Formats: sequence, C-alpha cells, structure tokens
Amino acid sequence: MPVFLNASAPEFEAAFTALLSAKREEAVDVDDTVAAIIADVRARGDAAVIELTAKFDKLELTPDRLAFSPAEIAAEVAKVPADERAALELAAARIRAYHERQRPADARWTDDTGAELGWRWGPVAAAGLYVPGGLASYPSSVLMNAIPAQVAGVERLVICAPTPGGVVNPLVLLAAQIAGVDTVYRIGGAQAVAAMAYGTDTIAPVDKITGPGNAYVAAAKRRVFGRVGIDMIAGPSEILVIADKDNDPDWIALDLLSQAEHDESAQSILITTDEGFGRAVADAVGKRLKTLERRAIAGASWRDYGAVIVVRDLAQAAALSDRIAPEHLELCVADPDALLAQIKHAGAVFLGHWTPEAIGDYIGGPNHVLPTARSARFSSGLSVLDFMKRTTLAKMTPEALRAIGPAAEQLATSESLQAHGLSVRARLDCLNR
Amino acid sequence: MPVFLNASAPEFEAAFTALLSAKREEAVDVDDTVAAIIADVRARGDAAVIELTAKFDKLELTPDRLAFSPAEIAAEVAKVPADERAALELAAARIRAYHERQRPADARWTDDTGAELGWRWGPVAAAGLYVPGGLASYPSSVLMNAIPAQVAGVERLVICAPTPGGVVNPLVLLAAQIAGVDTVYRIGGAQAVAAMAYGTDTIAPVDKITGPGNAYVAAAKRRVFGRVGIDMIAGPSEILVIADKDNDPDWIALDLLSQAEHDESAQSILITTDEGFGRAVADAVGKRLKTLERRAIAGASWRDYGAVIVVRDLAQAAALSDRIAPEHLELCVADPDALLAQIKHAGAVFLGHWTPEAIGDYIGGPNHVLPTARSARFSSGLSVLDFMKRTTLAKMTPEALRAIGPAAEQLATSESLQAHGLSVRARLDCLNR
Repeated sequence: MPVFLNASAPEFEAAFTALLSAKREEAVDVDDTVAAIIADVRARGDAAVIELTAKFDKLELTPDRLAFSPAEIAAEVAKVPADERAALELAAARIRAYHERQRPADARWTDDTGAELGWRWGPVAAAGLYVPGGLASYPSSVLMNAIPAQVAGVERLVICAPTPGGVVNPLVLLAAQIAGVDTVYRIGGAQAVAAMAYGTDTIAPVDKITGPGNAYVAAAKRRVFGRVGIDMIAGPSEILVIADKDNDPDWIALDLLSQAEHDESAQSILITTDEGFGRAVADAVGKRLKTLERRAIAGASWRDYGAVIVVRDLAQAAALSDRIAPEHLELCVADPDALLAQIKHAGAVFLGHWTPEAIGDYIGGPNHVLPTARSARFSSGLSVLDFMKRTTLAKMTPEALRAIGPAAEQLATSESLQAHGLSVRARLDCLNR
Repeated sequence: MPVFLNASAPEFEAAFTALLSAKREEAVDVDDTVAAIIADVRARGDAAVIELTAKFDKLELTPDRLAFSPAEIAAEVAKVPADERAALELAAARIRAYHERQRPADARWTDDTGAELGWRWGPVAAAGLYVPGGLASYPSSVLMNAIPAQVAGVERLVICAPTPGGVVNPLVLLAAQIAGVDTVYRIGGAQAVAAMAYGTDTIAPVDKITGPGNAYVAAAKRRVFGRVGIDMIAGPSEILVIADKDNDPDWIALDLLSQAEHDESAQSILITTDEGFGRAVADAVGKRLKTLERRAIAGASWRDYGAVIVVRDLAQAAALSDRIAPEHLELCVADPDALLAQIKHAGAVFLGHWTPEAIGDYIGGPNHVLPTARSARFSSGLSVLDFMKRTTLAKMTPEALRAIGPAAEQLATSESLQAHGLSVRARLDCLNR
C-alpha cells in the first residue's frame, strides 16, 4: 500500500515534504565513460561509431549501412498492420494540427522616435531525434519529437535509434516516415549523440538534439549542450489526479496505474476531497494490479512512490498541486475549469472525467514530452518553439538616433565603455554638422 | 593586424574554418571547487554563504545584512547624478515597451471531434538575477535581465551582486530599483547561485536564475540546472559587420572596437564587398586604438581574433554570416532589409548606417543578452518567454473520446502499455453500455 495522508493532520507537512523530496532515481555516474566516448567519436568519426555499436549493440555495421536504406525501411514498414498504421496516422494528424497553432509570429513596428523594432523567428537548420531501443522504443515519442520540428520548418531531420542485435521496431520506422524524417541511423548511446553533435564523414552534424534516453544518453546530451541545443533531461514520469467523490474509482485507479506501469521510479498521486473515495481507489488499484501485464513494475512504483492525500477542499488540493508542479495533472471534478484557474504549475492538464492521461500520451494533440521532477515550475513541454530561434531587429533613423543616442552615450560612459559611446557620438556629430 | 582574407582565394576555406573554430576562451576547470561550495551552502545555509563571502569578497556580513536595507539603497541611489538617472530611466522604458510585445497569448479551441484543446502561459514564481561585481558590473545588464522577468509577471525578483571589499555600484542599485527588483543580496560567486537555487534561512529559493558571471558562476549555474531553470551560459562577445563601400570607415571601426573593448576574447569581424574599404576600416581601427581608454583589451582582441573578409557580393556575405551565426550583426548596406532576407542565423541584427550596435546594448529596446559562440543557430536572446512556462490543456467530451479513444487504445497496445489502454477502454465501455 502507498502512503495515505490527511492534509489536515498535524504530521502531514513533514510527510508531504518527504514525498516531494523522495529521490526516485539513483544518479548513475557515467560521466567519465561518456566523455571518453565523445572524444573518441570526435577523433575517429565513423570508425569509432561503428566500433562502439559493435561493442554495445552487438551489431556489425559499415559506413554505408549506418542509416537504414529506403528499401529496408519499405520492407519494415510493410509489416505494420493496417489498424496500427491508421492509429499512428490519426495521432500524427492531430499532433500536427495542435502544433501548427504554436508557430510564433514575427513582429515589426515603428516607435515614436521613428525607430523600427521587431523580431523574426526561424527554424534551426537541422535537428536530431534520439529514440531509445528495446522496451522504451515508443513510436508515439517519434511523432511527439519529429512533428514539432517539422512544423517549425526544420530542413533536415534525422533519427538515431539503436537496434541491439539488429532488432528493429517497424512502428518506429513508420512513425519516422509519417513525421517526415529524412534519415534513420541505427546507432544509439553516447556515440549517437556525439555523432549528431559533431558530425562524422557519414553523419552531418545537427543544431538541436531532442528525445529521451538512458543515463549515457542523458550525460552525453548535457556534455554537448552549448555545441548544439538540447531539450530537457527527462526524469521518471509522474501523474497527479485531483478527484472528488463523483468518479468511478476504477477509472482513477487505471489512470494512476498508467503512469506507474512506465517505470518503477514513476510516481502516481491521488488528491481527493473524500476519504472513502480515496480508499476505494486504493482498493481498485490493488485489484487491477493482480492482472496487469506490467504488474511487477506498476506495483513497485505504487508501493514505493504512490500516495493518496485527503484534503479539506479543492482550494487545498490546488495549493498542494502547485507544490508538486506535476508533469501530468488530471482534474476529475465537476467544474475542472474553475479548479484550473486556481492552479499555476503543471506540465499538461487533463480536464474532466472523459480525459484519461493516456489520451495525451498518444492522440489528444498536445506534446507528451513534458517537464518532470517539479520542473514545471520553470519549464514547458516540447513545442514548435524548441526548434526555432528568434533574431531581434533594430533600425534607427537619424531622428531616432538623435532622440535616444545621447542616453546610450551617457550609459556607455557610466560603464567605462568608451568605444560604445564613440560609435554613437561619431554618428551624432555627423548629424549636427 | 588582424587576418585579412579574400573569400574568393583558394586558401580561404581553411582560414575561415580556423577563424570559426578558434578557441577564444580557456575552459577553466573549477567544477570540483564549485561542487564543494554548493554542497556547503546546502548543508549550512547562511553560515556557509557568510563564510565564503568573507573569504572571497573580504566582506564580513551577518544574516540580517545579507541584503541591502532600504535605507542603504536610498543612500546609494541618491549619489547618482540626474543625467545618469534619466538615461537609465529612458533605457528602462524602452526595454519595457519592447518586451511587453513579447507576452505570449493563451489559446483554447474546440476541434471537429468536440475536444477542447489549448495552452496557458504563466510566469515562474520567483527569479534570481546574478550581477557580477567589479568591472563587469553593468547597470544595463540589470535592466536587460530584470525587465523581461517583471513583464512576464514574476512575483518575486531578487538580485545577487557581490561587493568585493564592500564597494557598491550605485547605478546597479538604481537599475534594480527602476526595474522593480524586490531584494538585492550583496553576495556573489557559486555561493550566491547555490543560495538562490536551494535557499537558506534568509534567502528564499527561486525557480529561475539568469545573468552573466565568471567561470565559478557559470559552473554553478550548470550544476543547479534541473533544480531551477537557467538562461544560457554566455561566452565572450562578438560582432559581425557587413558593409559596402558607402560607409564612413571610422564609424565601422568604432563599431568593431565597441565589441573588442569588452574582453580580450571578444571577436570583431568585418565582411565587405570592397577591399579598399576593408583596408580603410583596418587603418581607422589602428588610429582609434592609439587613444582608446581600453586600448590594451581592444587591441589584443582585434589582433588575436579580429578579421576583415572581402567578398564578391552580398549573397556571399550572407552565406558566410550564417556560418558564423553572429551574436551581433550590423548590416551597413544600401538596402539592409534585402540583405536581412538572405540571412538565417543571428542573435540581434542592426539595420542600416544609423544603428550602431551600442544602441542595442543600452537603449534600442531589444535584449542585449544574446547567444554567443555560434549558438544563434539554435537559441535566442533573453526574452519574456524565459520567465514563463506553458501548461498544455486537453478536455475530451464523450463524443471526442468515442472518436479518438480507440486509436489511443491501439497505440497503447502496440507499445505494450496495457493500463494506458485500459484507462481509455473503461470509459469507452461505459459509453457503449
């Protein structure tokens, strides 16, 4: 059984703080190994990538076989049954429609001095998406990473996806095809991240690397950050459900379990205004755990990190929710929009009884790459903006420079930056001649 | 003399690549020291901060003197002459007006299945701005960091600014006051970053830390990233000027020097279509260097990293510019907007003859915190968005779930995530009953 807390009890604050600060993932220190791999790939390029792939993935490659050929992709994609393809295509269309609304607007205006100001957005030239191998090789994540990049207008979009022992997930290749990915390399680990960041003879470097991965991939992304852009470093998944008593306990139990089944380090929390309902959900979780395919994982997550918290009212629920700043937040209450208005920090919110979090994982439209570990306090889910950058624009006229130049000169003098001041003064003197 | 290159010469490609990859700053490895300082501040809070401030800044503090008192601020601010105050206020007003246009819009819509989708932006709750001490203590940087945070709606805004030996820059305190900063702590270094990230008894933790700093500050920001958000890690400043022959060589020389005077590691490059003009600018730089106050710094930067590149035409200039992806780009040509349309990667662009880069440093309106070291390929200058985060929203109706739920269930099955599928199925079954 997970912890069962009453938010009005005197010992609650200590227990809740413990829940918030529970370290759910051991930080594995792979930094030295990763540094050596990156140095090797920078020094020896394709040869290093091929050697490391043979070592870690037990797969012998040659430079011309680093990427899947069109024929290989066609053969793999043909294996996907029609209903799976249709589901993936519907998901892609809905994700694309949502993300197309995120395209930012350029701006340009003239202010009262006559100065023209503004900004302009543009896509990064090339992006690389990391797709883990094995169990965590999710075609939905391919769509969630590749479609925002494509909508942003990224010209060259590549994937690195390891295929340990040569085992390929046809759905990953199909998702890549649907999302408009140009090339899929069958490499993984820190060597794939290094190859995308620095380039090799075969693999052209990219400007931005996104996508989840294991400790080696995460450490490599941290190391190449600055050379290229990266997305967030994702931690284990989390869900917070706020529910009143007018819910089916089994639905809420399944919503909690759909995070718990991801990972033993995942965290599922229920906050409810009704203690009896809380107990009913805990019972329903126990019942479902008996038959769930991934019951070992989900059971460990629920036992170690799960929690049911009983609150006085929804205002208290909202306050606790903001302290958790959950990655996923379900509002299963009569007026979810009223509750939403009280909440400040969450990655993605699912409103009402008919929006299980799994809808957001696959097909709702919003991105499923979301800030974990309380980072929704300061960061956002993946979006089109992650694949774009903004250039600011300024264009003075003689009149504008006359109006604001002297103040710039003054500030340059205050900061002892003489050439700054002179660059303005030289132009002002010309105007005054 | 800096390098003088002709883009049409056979040896150009090698020389240009060398220029691009020149390592202008030695990476000082202070990571172990910084890790120890952060651990100390986490363990001992105020006591550690006070000890480290005594050690590094030769300044004895007590917990109640960590922050400037209102009386101290008033006394310092009163020292600022009226014309300096007026210049700072004009700068603040213009920076605020520019950044107010960056406030992002919320969105909510209903799609053809009846599903409501959207997103909502909100500010981070608290932000901390680092302001370096000594020579690099720029009041303009206080405005450039604090005003976007204030426009974003950040509720609590604090500054950490070391005052080695107790020496205070009154303009920094005035800029903080003008920008609406709540509290200014007279602490610096990795200990200040740690205090803002983790909090002490006296200093409440923040959610986002921005601002420039030395190697210790940069290493500390990298380390606390994840616990809090950070802005970019800034490298030495750069300017690229693209100019045709119809410019005053002295103006362009001063523009180049206004970056060079920042730092011996700064880089100033001129690309011109006219070799004679290029030589005239180099001569003008030489002449100005004889009398410039910071001639030692500017001279070293220009000698070691400066360059003049002669191109065939402006299209070639644009292509080279995109490979540089400059932090600051001046377009001193007859039709700067036509040239802008050919350029993809730059932090900030200054259009035409009347827009010296120094205008952007102080008073133009756009932010002067910009991506360096070619990172304009994938990142943007500081903006209101850096102090906000987005929550995505989804609200299904029974009809919407009926339309798209089965595809979600299918994808959950494909990914072997049974509880995900069941959470959708349980609701669909209810609808079908």
